[in-house]
Amino acid sequence: MSSYEDRLTALREQLKRDRLDGFVVPLTDEHMSEYVGSYAQRLAWLTGFQGSAGSAVVLPEEAAIFTDGRYTLQVRAQVDGRHWSFQSVPETSIADWLQAHAPQGGRIGYDPWLHTRDWVDRARTALAEKGAELVPVERNPVDAVWEDRPEPSPARLVVHPDVYAGKSSAAKRQEMADWLKAQKADAAVLSALDSIAWTFNVRGKDVEHTPVALAFALVHQDGTADLFVAGEKLGDEVRQHLGNGVRIHERSDFEPYLRTLGGRRIVVDPERAVAAIFAALDGAGATIVTKRDPAVLPKATKNEAEIAGHKAAQARDGAAVARFLHWLSVEAPRGGLDEMKASDKLEQFRREGGDLRDLSFPTISGSGANGAIVHYRASEETNRPIAPDSLYLVDSGGQYPDGTTDITRTVAIGTPSAEMRDRFTRVLKGHIALARAIFPSGTRGSQLDVLARQYLWRAGVDYAHGTGHGVGSYLAVHEGPQRIATFGGGDEALRAGMIISNEPGYYKTGEYGIRIENLVLVIALDLPGAEKPMLGFETLTYAPIDRTLIDLALLTDEERGWIDDYHARVKTLIGPQLDGEAKAWLEAACAPLEAR
Amino acid sequence: MSSYEDRLTALREQLKRDRLDGFVVPLTDEHMSEYVGSYAQRLAWLTGFQGSAGSAVVLPEEAAIFTDGRYTLQVRAQVDGRHWSFQSVPETSIADWLQAHAPQGGRIGYDPWLHTRDWVDRARTALAEKGAELVPVERNPVDAVWEDRPEPSPARLVVHPDVYAGKSSAAKRQEMADWLKAQKADAAVLSALDSIAWTFNVRGKDVEHTPVALAFALVHQDGTADLFVAGEKLGDEVRQHLGNGVRIHERSDFEPYLRTLGGRRIVVDPERAVAAIFAALDGAGATIVTKRDPAVLPKATKNEAEIAGHKAAQARDGAAVARFLHWLSVEAPRGGLDEMKASDKLEQFRREGGDLRDLSFPTISGSGANGAIVHYRASEETNRPIAPDSLYLVDSGGQYPDGTTDITRTVAIGTPSAEMRDRFTRVLKGHIALARAIFPSGTRGSQLDVLARQYLWRAGVDYAHGTGHGVGSYLAVHEGPQRIATFGGGDEALRAGMIISNEPGYYKTGEYGIRIENLVLVIALDLPGAEKPMLGFETLTYAPIDRTLIDLALLTDEERGWIDDYHARVKTLIGPQLDGEAKAWLEAACAPLEAR
Repeated sequence: MSSYEDRLTALREQLKRDRLDGFVVPLTDEHMSEYVGSYAQRLAWLTGFQGSAGSAVVLPEEAAIFTDGRYTLQVRAQVDGRHWSFQSVPETSIADWLQAHAPQGGRIGYDPWLHTRDWVDRARTALAEKGAELVPVERNPVDAVWEDRPEPSPARLVVHPDVYAGKSSAAKRQEMADWLKAQKADAAVLSALDSIAWTFNVRGKDVEHTPVALAFALVHQDGTADLFVAGEKLGDEVRQHLGNGVRIHERSDFEPYLRTLGGRRIVVDPERAVAAIFAALDGAGATIVTKRDPAVLPKATKNEAEIAGHKAAQARDGAAVARFLHWLSVEAPRGGLDEMKASDKLEQFRREGGDLRDLSFPTISGSGANGAIVHYRASEETNRPIAPDSLYLVDSGGQYPDGTTDITRTVAIGTPSAEMRDRFTRVLKGHIALARAIFPSGTRGSQLDVLARQYLWRAGVDYAHGTGHGVGSYLAVHEGPQRIATFGGGDEALRAGMIISNEPGYYKTGEYGIRIENLVLVIALDLPGAEKPMLGFETLTYAPIDRTLIDLALLTDEERGWIDDYHARVKTLIGPQLDGEAKAWLEAACAPLEAR
Repeated sequence: MSSYEDRLTALREQLKRDRLDGFVVPLTDEHMSEYVGSYAQRLAWLTGFQGSAGSAVVLPEEAAIFTDGRYTLQVRAQVDGRHWSFQSVPETSIADWLQAHAPQGGRIGYDPWLHTRDWVDRARTALAEKGAELVPVERNPVDAVWEDRPEPSPARLVVHPDVYAGKSSAAKRQEMADWLKAQKADAAVLSALDSIAWTFNVRGKDVEHTPVALAFALVHQDGTADLFVAGEKLGDEVRQHLGNGVRIHERSDFEPYLRTLGGRRIVVDPERAVAAIFAALDGAGATIVTKRDPAVLPKATKNEAEIAGHKAAQARDGAAVARFLHWLSVEAPRGGLDEMKASDKLEQFRREGGDLRDLSFPTISGSGANGAIVHYRASEETNRPIAPDSLYLVDSGGQYPDGTTDITRTVAIGTPSAEMRDRFTRVLKGHIALARAIFPSGTRGSQLDVLARQYLWRAGVDYAHGTGHGVGSYLAVHEGPQRIATFGGGDEALRAGMIISNEPGYYKTGEYGIRIENLVLVIALDLPGAEKPMLGFETLTYAPIDRTLIDLALLTDEERGWIDDYHARVKTLIGPQLDGEAKAWLEAACAPLEAR
């Protein structure tokens, strides 16, 4: 295996051959995916960086890697500072850095299958001020020098049965067709992998933790579709499921197909489609109608079957988490536990519960100071013991055929400090305020964000992440468009049927981390005397919240009532799945809080 | 006086002479002011509409008037439906309506001194789809047919002394000059009247309720300025105050002056400057740098002298309001009171308190059902008695040389219903939640809006207006850029020194209205253990809140504590200014709430 230094040298030689003075290496794929297959892990191959978000720019004499605040420490540990300069976003952007560092009049390459059109426009404008040019490449120069680059996954697609999907693919496509008619458009391009999986009621195995398959699609005004996917990935069952209304093409035929669409009006989503798709349609003389991918909103708004499936998955998942928390309560005091042993055990409980297809993301198992690293992932190098008188934070989830889960619990090992209990209780009060929120139809997630933060703010503290993200139905654990956050996203009105996380936290660097996360469902409320349509949340996640971390003096009667009701429901839903000591532990963990 | 029908006919004949197929009549002036002088009341002259926001379009055969939801009833009462069609914004826009109704290939006129450039661009694009053209006029055709049109006010400017302003005009201009250097710009155009009054530390009388003078200005990179104002408005004292650094020109020389700025880089605020200013600079070959008017943020962020002055003004104003509330408590049960008598009496108390320059807006004095009309203004036709067993809402404020006030109180006349007390208490809980908010530096007003609404939402009700607007220092009672609202504005981070209103409400159409409004000051907090700079609010407005409307069972201990503390401060600040029965009344009104 070549060294990272050799790889950088090889790429620079390739750039010379390609007559380029630089190249941009993002961490995404042709579908603007958050998680990508191994064939698309170009940034990791080139730099050694293992984080889930970042990009790099290589110039003849300089190279820079761009990461956000979550990865400030990790990027310095994994990437060689002698060859790479470390840049922080959003303080710097690739466009700004190129404007300062690109050679006057130079040619900077980019792969048009890995960037949005907006990114290209911004970078091009920035370079123009230097007289430099941004040039799309025909073949990615990283791929040209990456000798043992994995092939895209050949995994077969599977049918996502209507009993879980709640609506046939034909019915979904007919609704898109009606929408296309209203837009006076001929067809819509679907390039986001979860939109394609949702539209065709299929699932795949091409990306870790998200059950999607590499494909492109167009849905037409007559409800038929063209699906571009490697033929080897389709068995008879899936072909039969797709039916006559879906024409199958090789994935490599997608771009040539776009070039046949001259004169037609095609919907393309500028946030989800890469620049190459726009270029192909522009080149063909098609009229591009920029609209959001028509699968996004119906996918986010779960139907009755999806909600029922989600609840069934949550019941299994909650039992696995409860078994784990019981096991932890027995094992941790004995000593010898560490983060990796704990996350392995949790995964084992999930597998034993049945129907687990995958974890929904790499488990965050953080003991003590590691709990304060928001996107922590335990490795042999960082693995900490789960020690007495510390906090242990575990954020995890499962992919089940009927639903995707995501839960965080924070547990006191031994005796927590007064500060830990104060912070935990403030996080819990925020969690409860959001869970109990009642709001008019039309309210956006950003409006509710303060409810989860208000009690932390009273103590002069906060958390540097969003409060809630959407979650798919046996799909992506981070799913748009809804979001509850201070900045970035949160502009989408919440609608009945949306599933979203409720996860305030608090992190004390070098000491401990706290997060309490349940998923909640947006539901319509029928309030007596209401003057407008009102919405609220129904909590979907059921597992005990550590009572030893609650400072009862900080709670109102309403908050105590919420916790007691929540624990009573945990006992009802999860209790029957446990027995013996685990059941006794659960009953104690779910007893009402002591009287005031 | 000509009839409205005659006026419409005369305008149509003028349009024919001007070879126009239509004309747009907005309600604003050359400064994009919210309140305008009588010379600019073209919409009222043409249509009879007396509301404070709206516009009209006149075509050869059709005419439409556009108003928002506040004026749905009023516009139909004041404007003749036989000649005008009623259009609601934002459901329809002028651009949309013109696109549907303008004659194919027609020429639609607009006055470039009365619209922003963005408005012109949008309307032009909409008309282009009809092959129609949007044409700037040299002379406003309404003015051509408005025979007895008032002249712009000749009122003299007065000096706003440094003791109230807290900073000299020269110092303010030097800060702008430093900012211009950083922007690499030569000068900034100031066209908003309150920006000009603030920058030069002058006040005027050209607009009702807002102490500003009609003028334009440019501030240059050397800290000098050009001020364009009618010479007759400047006495010796003001000329001396302005000094050598300010070159005086006639207001009519502003446009010719802009035409001399070829080759220079000029800052223009696209929200506050009209299209004609852009056109003049473009025509001259100047480079336009679109940035926010550099007076806006420092004007909104009050200095120590402005804060001290505001508090002194509030103490006088609070005493006037307390005297009024006492008078109301005596007079209302006797019968014979009505809305206009009450608002006249309140104005009299304000005048008697001393130093009142003007009301800060027309008093909203609403009894019973009229209280539910958010922008109600009592007139002979609508004047209602203040009757037993009803609610009375009064929203009012004063312009004092040291500060601008704005306060709303809702008072029970006789015995309120359980529903009234429930709603009032929910409004009060929201008011308290906002008043007590603690939040990190960088928080925007829109993030806090939910705090004021949350208890109403729990009952399925809401209010259809913003929660808070900025307030000037002896300037506009509605001052940007800060705002607390669900939609529209609210994107500006709150900063220490900003004054903003806290005014949740509830309105039951046809029955009653409730609003509780105090002004608050954003202050930096020094919280022990805080991990980031935190802000909070200090309440500035002191007058009793009607305890007979409070349902104690709905309050938490913290809320009761806030009310008792607030009333204790009212007694301390206002009590010494009252005597006799008024003082005894105040003491009872400010006593602690009964024990639980």
